[in-house]
Amino acid sequence: MSDQLRVAIVGGTGYTGAELLRLLAVHPQAEVVAVTSRQESGRPVADVFPNLRGHYALSFSEPDMEALAQQSDVVFFATPHGAAMSGVAELLRRDARVIDLSADFRLRDQAVWEQWYGQTHTAPEYLDEAVYGLPELNAASLAQARLVACPGCYPTAVELALMPLLKAGVVASRGIIADAKSGVSGAGRQAKLGMLFCETADSFAPYASAGHRHQPEIDQILSEMAGTPVQCLFQPHLTPQVRGIEASIYAPLVDQQADLQALFEAAYADAPFVDVMPPGSHPQTRSVRGSNMARLAVTQRGDTAVVFSVIDNLARGSSAQAIQCMNIMFGLDQAVGLNAPAMLP
Amino acid sequence: MSDQLRVAIVGGTGYTGAELLRLLAVHPQAEVVAVTSRQESGRPVADVFPNLRGHYALSFSEPDMEALAQQSDVVFFATPHGAAMSGVAELLRRDARVIDLSADFRLRDQAVWEQWYGQTHTAPEYLDEAVYGLPELNAASLAQARLVACPGCYPTAVELALMPLLKAGVVASRGIIADAKSGVSGAGRQAKLGMLFCETADSFAPYASAGHRHQPEIDQILSEMAGTPVQCLFQPHLTPQVRGIEASIYAPLVDQQADLQALFEAAYADAPFVDVMPPGSHPQTRSVRGSNMARLAVTQRGDTAVVFSVIDNLARGSSAQAIQCMNIMFGLDQAVGLNAPAMLP
Amino acid sequence: MSDQLRVAIVGGTGYTGAELLRLLAVHPQAEVVAVTSRQESGRPVADVFPNLRGHYALSFSEPDMEALAQQSDVVFFATPHGAAMSGVAELLRRDARVIDLSADFRLRDQAVWEQWYGQTHTAPEYLDEAVYGLPELNAASLAQARLVACPGCYPTAVELALMPLLKAGVVASRGIIADAKSGVSGAGRQAKLGMLFCETADSFAPYASAGHRHQPEIDQILSEMAGTPVQCLFQPHLTPQVRGIEASIYAPLVDQQADLQALFEAAYADAPFVDVMPPGSHPQTRSVRGSNMARLAVTQRGDTAVVFSVIDNLARGSSAQAIQCMNIMFGLDQAVGLNAPAMLP
Amino acid sequence: MSDQLRVAIVGGTGYTGAELLRLLAVHPQAEVVAVTSRQESGRPVADVFPNLRGHYALSFSEPDMEALAQQSDVVFFATPHGAAMSGVAELLRRDARVIDLSADFRLRDQAVWEQWYGQTHTAPEYLDEAVYGLPELNAASLAQARLVACPGCYPTAVELALMPLLKAGVVASRGIIADAKSGVSGAGRQAKLGMLFCETADSFAPYASAGHRHQPEIDQILSEMAGTPVQCLFQPHLTPQVRGIEASIYAPLVDQQADLQALFEAAYADAPFVDVMPPGSHPQTRSVRGSNMARLAVTQRGDTAVVFSVIDNLARGSSAQAIQCMNIMFGLDQAVGLNAPAMLP
Repeated sequence: MSDQLRVAIVGGTGYTGAELLRLLAVHPQAEVVAVTSRQESGRPVADVFPNLRGHYALSFSEPDMEALAQQSDVVFFATPHGAAMSGVAELLRRDARVIDLSADFRLRDQAVWEQWYGQTHTAPEYLDEAVYGLPELNAASLAQARLVACPGCYPTAVELALMPLLKAGVVASRGIIADAKSGVSGAGRQAKLGMLFCETADSFAPYASAGHRHQPEIDQILSEMAGTPVQCLFQPHLTPQVRGIEASIYAPLVDQQADLQALFEAAYADAPFVDVMPPGSHPQTRSVRGSNMARLAVTQRGDTAVVFSVIDNLARGSSAQAIQCMNIMFGLDQAVGLNAPAMLP
Repeated sequence: MSDQLRVAIVGGTGYTGAELLRLLAVHPQAEVVAVTSRQESGRPVADVFPNLRGHYALSFSEPDMEALAQQSDVVFFATPHGAAMSGVAELLRRDARVIDLSADFRLRDQAVWEQWYGQTHTAPEYLDEAVYGLPELNAASLAQARLVACPGCYPTAVELALMPLLKAGVVASRGIIADAKSGVSGAGRQAKLGMLFCETADSFAPYASAGHRHQPEIDQILSEMAGTPVQCLFQPHLTPQVRGIEASIYAPLVDQQADLQALFEAAYADAPFVDVMPPGSHPQTRSVRGSNMARLAVTQRGDTAVVFSVIDNLARGSSAQAIQCMNIMFGLDQAVGLNAPAMLP
Repeated sequence: MSDQLRVAIVGGTGYTGAELLRLLAVHPQAEVVAVTSRQESGRPVADVFPNLRGHYALSFSEPDMEALAQQSDVVFFATPHGAAMSGVAELLRRDARVIDLSADFRLRDQAVWEQWYGQTHTAPEYLDEAVYGLPELNAASLAQARLVACPGCYPTAVELALMPLLKAGVVASRGIIADAKSGVSGAGRQAKLGMLFCETADSFAPYASAGHRHQPEIDQILSEMAGTPVQCLFQPHLTPQVRGIEASIYAPLVDQQADLQALFEAAYADAPFVDVMPPGSHPQTRSVRGSNMARLAVTQRGDTAVVFSVIDNLARGSSAQAIQCMNIMFGLDQAVGLNAPAMLP
Repeated sequence: MSDQLRVAIVGGTGYTGAELLRLLAVHPQAEVVAVTSRQESGRPVADVFPNLRGHYALSFSEPDMEALAQQSDVVFFATPHGAAMSGVAELLRRDARVIDLSADFRLRDQAVWEQWYGQTHTAPEYLDEAVYGLPELNAASLAQARLVACPGCYPTAVELALMPLLKAGVVASRGIIADAKSGVSGAGRQAKLGMLFCETADSFAPYASAGHRHQPEIDQILSEMAGTPVQCLFQPHLTPQVRGIEASIYAPLVDQQADLQALFEAAYADAPFVDVMPPGSHPQTRSVRGSNMARLAVTQRGDTAVVFSVIDNLARGSSAQAIQCMNIMFGLDQAVGLNAPAMLP
């Protein structure tokens, strides 16, 4: 179909690549024309991901930026950090637009990026141009973007939960706690001892208490939202499930008379993928499994605003949100291809 | 949309009802116009199933056959056995077509039905008319059917695995073993002690060794396929997962020179929802999670044909297969609305 | 053996009863002489809990306080709240000592108890006498106690985490957050729809944000520890695993120079069942599975003390801790019968 | 304690090593004096396995056979295959007795071993001497053994299930099917992609249909039991749980009048770790979690004997059974240290 968006995926063997492939298989206005993997080059996609048998005849190819730019209108990077920044210049030069699911362009400050990611940034000239791909924050910029830096999974959950409060100025900018829990798929599809079934099943634990790479991203975006530096103690945990992030957020109220429910409903009135649940709700991660929906519930307990936020880390926290960005970038209905309900049970 | 199929669901609070609602929410040629529940009558559907928030404005209603017949073109029964047989006459009389996901019309022999289900059959006059809803077996009859008896979840997995072998006459009709394993959702959405998380998680067990209600159904259909009485020892087990059935089937070969792989590939060459995997494959239930696909692998070990068959018990084993039947009954492409790949991971 | 402690258990069909039976089966100085259940009276214990086959010849009996007092030295109540308060007077009058795993005697204030538990307290005269069974707090009183009120599972995790900080006065008494997560066994062994495998597996969610019954208990004990009213926002969550509680606790520091690690190590130097882990540790619930051990890790992040606390909710959070109390009450080594390591993996 | 058995463990970082350490921590007549690991040499045992904190002060050491022989009375190999055969000569020469949990000495026939394990056997002179460590089969020989070859996990489950039938000659020697399911811990503690949580959770699949290394072991032992070559089609599957094996065994009866229940009860009347359950039972793997108990249920369906067998693959299928062998070898009560009930829930 000549009017289909032609999509290429760099790094298609991880879980975010698999999720892009799953979702794009039924996107009515896009078609995957190439998917790369150094390691699996030449192997049929459906061999690696048997759920895709019958959906893709493609095989993985070597990542060749020039070829990708010719073949496609938009290139997704579903790679570990470090890969997108090495390919972006070539792609943009040849008029491909780029949606990066990795962390390469999320932080504005090169020095902060290099400190947290422990390497030199090789394309710092794009840090300013990159649009942070949180559609509820940046829809207008996304429509024009050549380069999108998709949010991290945890930041997506935390930022959506705090945006109405910070924009309205009803909570303090210090003393915010974000206690977040992620399913194991957040750790990626790599053979790590600690992510074995027998090391993670039937157990729960915190991790990264000395500081997680999503901390500076959260700090940056919350501060933009508030218009003032915001300090949020972010603590991640691992929960024994495949998909899902839940963040429980505790923020000291400065305005204790604010109608928090009304604030949230107004903030997200036009957002097709944010569900402000009724007062007293307790969102479950399974209610968003496989879906781009974020579900929020807000309540007040004494001096504290408590927000519960659930997303699917692979979908809203990565690949589905990236497709939502693509839809906006190319003038499509932002919801196209993303309307299937979450899978429950 | 006036050309949409109007669908009613009787008994929408169980898992097969929830699965029908999930799948029909994105079916382009059907629309759910009513969903009933005695217990939840008046309550919004999306209240009971939060994954459906934003997808349905409907509330559960009282089951009123006359009203349903007027409102809808087709009525699904997603009820425990015993309900469909009390409503079918009224519906058919008023020209609604009926797709029964329960066991009421699966067995041809009233006496056998009454023995296994422990109650009197109140609509035995429809046992002959009902078409057994295994599309690969009965596509032609389904196109004309007024009343469809959808297969049980286990029978679907077992029958698809044995059909090519029995039709070709390459296996014996006695001594067949079907060792089947089901996720917990097969037990339904009812508050039973034995189906608590803490009674089923991290454990595996056989059950129903004295005889399971799917045994006579399997016997009946396999015998039809073979054209001779077939004896299959069917043994179910419970595996600690939500969705998925795997059946490992061991059948004594009478023709040891048969090319089993070729036999299966030919048998299912035109079946969009049966995937005959390459030789040596080991299908995983997750490769069909949420999907209507059945994946089969066949191999020969000594004198024995071994077939591995995986389905999603709620999808291929119930609601998705029922929608495939609906598509065929109403002259639609049998695959419409059912094309999304399985969710992996 | 005439020098064995004779133990009776009232309400032996729940998970805390099962855990008492499991642990006492190998306690070298105690013997279970009776276990009651109205519902299962007459049925062999090992019939209900097949893991106990070969360990107990006992059958469940009707709860008869007079008989229990005669047969036994100590009576455990492993019942829902409301049962212990109706039997305690009779038992104490006949010189049996009582260890209540339920909530009946945890709160000092009758009015508060009645408000949270929604019924009249029928034995308020024992609220003062009951010793709160947190051994690290109340060892001396336990040695003399006739009636022990065992802590709730969440309070155990939270109180052990905060005791060193509150006693030393290094954290504020307001603004403390306790974000706690529990495995599903905390909900008990009752046929509830919401606790089905298919309703809880592969999902995570908060609950009880309007207030949980463990809140007043936590408030009471933390305030006793601090010697001043303490306000702690306690928020529970459900994690898809059988056993285990993790609590992440965030407390504003008033003394930012305090050596938190040293403080914890000193506080628990003599506690056989509190493990203060090395700096930077991230305790996993599986490291305490089936064991009486609580593992704690403490760190400082900016102005905030962060403590991670893990216990097995059925063991340290209930039955094993109750046995530790029994050991202390009867002058045994507090660790006897409780020394098996946690089961990992 | 000078009268304690001194135990050394070679290869202590896998799950069977961890299980030996867990069980021996509370064995009243044995003490672990050394545990080796090339990779973790110098690191405290309790660092790798946090459940053992407080139980072991030992660190991993380099495997030095001479030193181990001096320090210990018995040496367990909890290594991958290939390691025990390189150390056994040195150990036996110095009068240490050896219990090998790996596969090195399970098969009598060197050629068969080399074919299945794909390497040269370097100590074939011990293949005859090694006693197969299934206590119910070989108790007398074990008492004298210098070298014990512990059974594989699957063979333990299958052989205990078939022993009464084969010894009594009531089933055929051909046409036996053993459909077995194992938890993921059977795959060991190694960073393999396929054993990640996200690759195995919430899914079920067969594997190794072309032949599993436990097949020749099963064939050998069943044939010994029957006194004639036995052919058993063994098919393993992976179930999404940490521990547990269930084998469902289908054997054609030659004597259809045999009282199978009585046969099993008589066969295991004196076996403390085989539980023949009442007629109609359905053993759950959780009923043996962490325990040395095997639970069996037998029934007749038409011409077929059906046996359900459950064990904990790490305990009865490996480490606990190895300790039972040790007890027998050194004249202790075979049950000492192994009496704790399984952990349920």
